[in-house]
Amino acid sequence: MIIARVIGNVWATRKEESLRGLKFLVVQPVAINYQEAGGVYLESRGDTLVVGDKIGAGESEIVMVAGGSSARQSLADTHIPIDAMVVGIIDKETFESGSGERYE
Amino acid sequence: MIIARVIGNVWATRKEESLRGLKFLVVQPVAINYQEAGGVYLESRGDTLVVGDKIGAGESEIVMVAGGSSARQSLADTHIPIDAMVVGIIDKETFESGSGERYE
Amino acid sequence: MIIARVIGNVWATRKEESLRGLKFLVVQPVAINYQEAGGVYLESRGDTLVVGDKIGAGESEIVMVAGGSSARQSLADTHIPIDAMVVGIIDKETFESGSGERYE
Amino acid sequence: MIIARVIGNVWATRKEESLRGLKFLVVQPVAINYQEAGGVYLESRGDTLVVGDKIGAGESEIVMVAGGSSARQSLADTHIPIDAMVVGIIDKETFESGSGERYE
Amino acid sequence: MIIARVIGNVWATRKEESLRGLKFLVVQPVAINYQEAGGVYLESRGDTLVVGDKIGAGESEIVMVAGGSSARQSLADTHIPIDAMVVGIIDKETFESGSGERYE
Repeated sequence: MIIARVIGNVWATRKEESLRGLKFLVVQPVAINYQEAGGVYLESRGDTLVVGDKIGAGESEIVMVAGGSSARQSLADTHIPIDAMVVGIIDKETFESGSGERYE
Repeated sequence: MIIARVIGNVWATRKEESLRGLKFLVVQPVAINYQEAGGVYLESRGDTLVVGDKIGAGESEIVMVAGGSSARQSLADTHIPIDAMVVGIIDKETFESGSGERYE
Repeated sequence: MIIARVIGNVWATRKEESLRGLKFLVVQPVAINYQEAGGVYLESRGDTLVVGDKIGAGESEIVMVAGGSSARQSLADTHIPIDAMVVGIIDKETFESGSGERYE
Repeated sequence: MIIARVIGNVWATRKEESLRGLKFLVVQPVAINYQEAGGVYLESRGDTLVVGDKIGAGESEIVMVAGGSSARQSLADTHIPIDAMVVGIIDKETFESGSGERYE
Repeated sequence: MIIARVIGNVWATRKEESLRGLKFLVVQPVAINYQEAGGVYLESRGDTLVVGDKIGAGESEIVMVAGGSSARQSLADTHIPIDAMVVGIIDKETFESGSGERYE
């Protein structure tokens, strides 16, 4: 999965019927960099994407995005024409500098 | 999904029978950049693609494109050999500078 | 779909049985650039690929290629291990400088 | 498959129910470089990813990651919204400089 | 499909049970360049990959690799968690400088 930061959302009145009711977020993919001193920082990488969301991620939260046919498995109807969905919101502590345990 | 601008279309008389009747648009993928002052601007990124369209997107409109097997889910017959389809047309207000609300 | 120029073909005597009889073309993906003056030019982008072809594209023709599981939908047996197929040959007029109508 | 080094893990309390119980590792894709003198070194390439793991890879181990719908085939329920899974841990000897046989 | 050169192989004692018995090759993707004078040369492009092989490709041979769900179609059990398989070995003559006919 890619990890990405939520930076906005988009609206599309004219769209596939089966997509009605689904929220579309704009996300910026990020890379996870572990520092020797134990901290973690996130770096923007690659281009923004639009992803569906039914978990309720808020702006600037870091989300886990599943792509391709796997994205559709998170929906009751797996025949919906969507190729990227939020499947998790990363716990804040994971990336808090210093306190985020790098590894169990 | 990628977001892209419609910049033209292509015609292919010699093609898979099951693709007859489908319109093919040329699109330029774009990245969405939010400015501190609240505006939004779109930046061309990556190479042009050809996508199928049955929603009726017009030239220069910004569309949401689903790729891979997910693209086929927008068609009555999901066994058509197509790997990219327009699944939504982004509302103009979304990107109008200043007025486009970045986030609900 | 990507758009690509046919630049050659390859032969593989030792291959999956189910691929026998299928022609393999070498293609160079291209980007479509529309000029203000109305002309269109194609620019090589990215790396060459090998694609299956049963439509009969000739050298230097511009083809539309479907990838992934969508490629397999163009075959009678969709369980053939192929991930890229020619699904259309772009009409020459589409890209003829000056005469190619950019948009209906 | 890509080959990647395990560099950490992430936690997501708010996630798809079907993902509960699965461990998420942060991995850094690597390229494999064979040296004329017979040694092998691994070079970080591309961006970090999050992958599911049920084999039990430890930090700094080199893993083989399957992506897309193939990732889901490693799970009892193949309808789980995940697009990258560890499917093997590369034996240490494979890359030990000098001793790692490049080829049987 | 991508075209790649076999440069080594990897072993993974700890791996998905269903992958037992399958050979894993390290391959370097290559681009095919046709020269005006009629010769062909191959150029390394992108990062190394690990691919499954049941055809028996040898070191330095040039192979055709199918990716994603299409890779799995080459196996008796298509539910094996693998996303890249050798599906053909390119005949040597194809790329022999001078003698390799660029096009039938």
